[in-house]
Amino acid sequence: MNLKRPSVVVLLVLFLSTTGLFAQETSVVETLKLYALAFDMIWLVLAAALVFFMQAGFAMVETGLTRAKNASNILMKNLMDFSAGSVVFWAVGWAIMYGASTGGLFGTSQFFLADADSSLLRDWMFQVVFAATAATIVSGAMAERTRFRAYLVYSVFISGLIYPVSGHWIWNADGWLATLGFHDFAGSTVVHSVGGWAALAGAVVLGPRTGKYVRANGKLSVKAIPGHNMPIAALGVFILWFGWYGFNAGSTLSGTDLTIASVAVTTTLAASAGAIAAMFTSWIWFGKPDASMSLNGAPAGLVGITAGCGVATPLGAVIIGLIAGLLVVLSVEFFDKVLHIDDPVGAISVHGVCGVWGTLAVGLFADTDDVRGLFYGGGFRQLGVQALGVVAVLGWVLAVGFALFYAIKATIGLRVSETEELQGLDIGEHGSEAYSGFQIFSTQ
Amino acid sequence: MNLKRPSVVVLLVLFLSTTGLFAQETSVVETLKLYALAFDMIWLVLAAALVFFMQAGFAMVETGLTRAKNASNILMKNLMDFSAGSVVFWAVGWAIMYGASTGGLFGTSQFFLADADSSLLRDWMFQVVFAATAATIVSGAMAERTRFRAYLVYSVFISGLIYPVSGHWIWNADGWLATLGFHDFAGSTVVHSVGGWAALAGAVVLGPRTGKYVRANGKLSVKAIPGHNMPIAALGVFILWFGWYGFNAGSTLSGTDLTIASVAVTTTLAASAGAIAAMFTSWIWFGKPDASMSLNGAPAGLVGITAGCGVATPLGAVIIGLIAGLLVVLSVEFFDKVLHIDDPVGAISVHGVCGVWGTLAVGLFADTDDVRGLFYGGGFRQLGVQALGVVAVLGWVLAVGFALFYAIKATIGLRVSETEELQGLDIGEHGSEAYSGFQIFSTQ
Amino acid sequence: MNLKRPSVVVLLVLFLSTTGLFAQETSVVETLKLYALAFDMIWLVLAAALVFFMQAGFAMVETGLTRAKNASNILMKNLMDFSAGSVVFWAVGWAIMYGASTGGLFGTSQFFLADADSSLLRDWMFQVVFAATAATIVSGAMAERTRFRAYLVYSVFISGLIYPVSGHWIWNADGWLATLGFHDFAGSTVVHSVGGWAALAGAVVLGPRTGKYVRANGKLSVKAIPGHNMPIAALGVFILWFGWYGFNAGSTLSGTDLTIASVAVTTTLAASAGAIAAMFTSWIWFGKPDASMSLNGAPAGLVGITAGCGVATPLGAVIIGLIAGLLVVLSVEFFDKVLHIDDPVGAISVHGVCGVWGTLAVGLFADTDDVRGLFYGGGFRQLGVQALGVVAVLGWVLAVGFALFYAIKATIGLRVSETEELQGLDIGEHGSEAYSGFQIFSTQ
Repeated sequence: MNLKRPSVVVLLVLFLSTTGLFAQETSVVETLKLYALAFDMIWLVLAAALVFFMQAGFAMVETGLTRAKNASNILMKNLMDFSAGSVVFWAVGWAIMYGASTGGLFGTSQFFLADADSSLLRDWMFQVVFAATAATIVSGAMAERTRFRAYLVYSVFISGLIYPVSGHWIWNADGWLATLGFHDFAGSTVVHSVGGWAALAGAVVLGPRTGKYVRANGKLSVKAIPGHNMPIAALGVFILWFGWYGFNAGSTLSGTDLTIASVAVTTTLAASAGAIAAMFTSWIWFGKPDASMSLNGAPAGLVGITAGCGVATPLGAVIIGLIAGLLVVLSVEFFDKVLHIDDPVGAISVHGVCGVWGTLAVGLFADTDDVRGLFYGGGFRQLGVQALGVVAVLGWVLAVGFALFYAIKATIGLRVSETEELQGLDIGEHGSEAYSGFQIFSTQ
Repeated sequence: MNLKRPSVVVLLVLFLSTTGLFAQETSVVETLKLYALAFDMIWLVLAAALVFFMQAGFAMVETGLTRAKNASNILMKNLMDFSAGSVVFWAVGWAIMYGASTGGLFGTSQFFLADADSSLLRDWMFQVVFAATAATIVSGAMAERTRFRAYLVYSVFISGLIYPVSGHWIWNADGWLATLGFHDFAGSTVVHSVGGWAALAGAVVLGPRTGKYVRANGKLSVKAIPGHNMPIAALGVFILWFGWYGFNAGSTLSGTDLTIASVAVTTTLAASAGAIAAMFTSWIWFGKPDASMSLNGAPAGLVGITAGCGVATPLGAVIIGLIAGLLVVLSVEFFDKVLHIDDPVGAISVHGVCGVWGTLAVGLFADTDDVRGLFYGGGFRQLGVQALGVVAVLGWVLAVGFALFYAIKATIGLRVSETEELQGLDIGEHGSEAYSGFQIFSTQ
Repeated sequence: MNLKRPSVVVLLVLFLSTTGLFAQETSVVETLKLYALAFDMIWLVLAAALVFFMQAGFAMVETGLTRAKNASNILMKNLMDFSAGSVVFWAVGWAIMYGASTGGLFGTSQFFLADADSSLLRDWMFQVVFAATAATIVSGAMAERTRFRAYLVYSVFISGLIYPVSGHWIWNADGWLATLGFHDFAGSTVVHSVGGWAALAGAVVLGPRTGKYVRANGKLSVKAIPGHNMPIAALGVFILWFGWYGFNAGSTLSGTDLTIASVAVTTTLAASAGAIAAMFTSWIWFGKPDASMSLNGAPAGLVGITAGCGVATPLGAVIIGLIAGLLVVLSVEFFDKVLHIDDPVGAISVHGVCGVWGTLAVGLFADTDDVRGLFYGGGFRQLGVQALGVVAVLGWVLAVGFALFYAIKATIGLRVSETEELQGLDIGEHGSEAYSGFQIFSTQ
């Protein structure tokens, strides 16, 4: 800090210009108040921009990990779920999530951001990118077989209803889980599990991609369908990690909160540990360090630390990340090989399963006065509340998600025809190819 | 804000350390002044970095929407227009734009940033990335057929002359349009229309790509030439959108301006509305939601809101974006199918046409005390001034642009040979391929 | 700055609420101290995020400039050197670099960030991304032939030992080079030369890629092995440039340092000049403006200005950048054609050679009271100290680097089999292809 001694000239000028002692003092206090608002403003708007950029990360990961013939379709879904979602979150989503609470269940004021001042606009800007993150998680799990118009309808409902309601429970000060002490700093449950469970509902109602699970001679064989572009998938992971600094550190919600550094450090270490653990797990499991599994390890670690990034120690973050990286590989295998639920990019495992882990981890690893986990002398109370929140959100999202996807299936139709699926959704849904001029094997 | 009660210990220390009341007060005021500078510094340098990153966005969009055989050439043009442009903007561009005004027409001081202090360097840093944005818009419209050396010459002139002169009119406080009350917050006209009209001049003087408009049996058929890499085109759009938060919100020019949030919100909503409108327009027009049109809808909405992002309401932003998204599809079709001007990436429509729309929209949708549009009780005066600015800038850029491109054509040559064009500019201009090892159809 | 005159109402409220004059004053001073911390916090955490994102830049550049069959392997190396490196830098690297100094040679406290407060966590966050930058430079030079497990071992040692020790010499206030006045503002030597010389050691011990230098009829022919994806290589360069604003401007280490703008300006101009010079040098040298050389010119200029970005003038930055751009082309040719050291992406030249140039350039172009170079009346003293630092770090890194790589070679093995190399490391090391479905020529 630079509290310079004043020069004599400055002193004289001040002496002449100040009309009175309290006037001078008050203008200082007013300026300090303005600066406090300015810190929050630039911090949250820049953090929101970083979180917005995660949309590019999801788009690249999902496109890279699926087939070339469906690339434009996935890109379109990612573009439109943000676009539709932000307009819906302006119209109704924010109001349901942060409006005046009805019994801790949902909000009912501030539709269309009525009478918003600069602080409310700032908060909306930071929150809309979180809503969009929840929405976009689903496109990966439903990739390569969903009708485009069906996806559009879904994206309106997640941003306008599903996400805001459970978000209200936890992040509205009057939400019923908030009042119980449920702690989810940046959204392991609020954002990631919501996206993950909606992805699960969608993937189940859709069914697997044609050719994914083939029954021959009474035996079901599981076919691996490799992604077509690992460089953009890896780029997507780096973009997600980059944006996550806005996601987690921004969730301090204040530019003068000195725990920002701690949040950034736990975020970094958990992501790294997640990548390391996923790599070694895949190495042991498959005999070689698998690229797509390792790439998924970093977001797994990030999702894992998201709930507890403000209350975990660096060591706690490393452990949370390691377990998330292990979990994501086992979970991807479990959903694929055991449950035969086809999730082309592992979204259910990364966001749903690791979101649960991260939420529970708060009850184990939290080490602050306000929130304290089992391993740091806090007993079982916090862990219990975390588990309750996990179950409540899972129930809400699966119930509404299944209802929504079945309703879409019964009305406008959820899935493209098998012919279109084999040809690729880029031609069928959008009338063009993603890689015009490149020779691409027809079997892909 | 955190105005803590002082502890007794701190009080005593302070009592002993302060030599007098006014000394203490003055040091506080000096510190507050330093902090005001610090807010502006970190805000504008970070915003400048975001706007710089838009160069990557343009490079990816333009590369993705053209053919594989010209990819390296487009990337080189994007790299070099920034590199040459920034050196030229340091040497002369800034001086012409922000130097002491000669009759409101152009500036004549501060060449090579002579005697620049930290505030001037900060402002240059934020402005050079805007100059570079105007410059790089053109490369897309002139893609796949322009000689590399011709493009280099062009890029020196736009950054050193064309952009700074009309920029002086509007963004220099003494510029003739500025004194009339012309309002262009972040550059719908200053940056985007300038780039768009220069692109128009370039595309007209160059002529269309070989094979684009084919006359057979007395009838002209328009051939669609699809882009070769939609994932990087989509990535480019996300990068542009991300960088636009720096472009628009940074244009508050102050880190303590609390309208930053409002700017970010209108920017978000207009971009979303643009993507939505372009998607539905293409859906109705072509029968399917077109990927490249939808992708262009987001920057169309962004260009549309750029002039008015500080004065429009959220609802106004949605409407401005919707119209921009509709306009961009119609305009692309009009330039292609009716005027037969070949603009491979739609730069004229996105930046020129939507830049005009955004500039006029200020005269319709502005809702502040300082700037008020027709729909909010402001009458026709603002709209008239906006229209005057649109026409003046269009006249200036087209006049100098056509002169420049014809002069280049008459001297060093503007266009590559047809043989080189068919073979691809990567081989012809740079001696290497962009995708070594990939099988790419020769017809592309 | 906005020092508003207080309204009467506010004045009265204040009069009633303040318990005494000194209390009010003290709370103001406390708030100012908090704000100073807040400036540094948000500035350094955002700058750290930008530097983190450079990992994506390196990954894209290295992948794009090598062959498709090794893409996943390079991506994995980039992901894992950060992941392993950050955990190691948490455990031991920081302690060796910034812990209490033992004779100016290395640190011995703060292992595992013991007892870290928010300021230390903030500084670690900013430093870990620098350590990771040094680490990741090496992967490009060792691309397309290194065993994955060997690379993992290397990455632990550079982040935990090689980088922190020489970093201690220069950036720990008690380091022996720091006490001599060695000036390396953001790491031309600390980060880039360290990475570059480790890359040199690795490339020499590994030997060239199979088929790179072929002896036929007594004559050695040097085969150019072109990269497979210029768009992502160019994207990588733009990402690096973008992140470099965090790298250089963040190295002010303070959000209230008003030289931030000057650093951003010199960074911009040097990068631009580097790209321009490399383009023209390649144009003269090869007859055409080469894309990969031009792309390398921008990071060459950036590495060149990194040491002196805080002390050079804009003109000095342009000259430093021009020379770096010239140097990088000559150096790449020299290592390839004369020394026959196979560095697939030019990492040794960009980071090692231009890092030396940038470090020496401080002794020539520095123009501040604290640091003054030969050309600005400072004599030879600073230049001599800079040269001493260059030699010391070169000696340290090459000595330990060669020892490390020979040790790895002798134990777990450094290089894949020739069969695996020809088939591609993606299949051999990771069991999958990067571009599934694309037709790629087998000779590549």
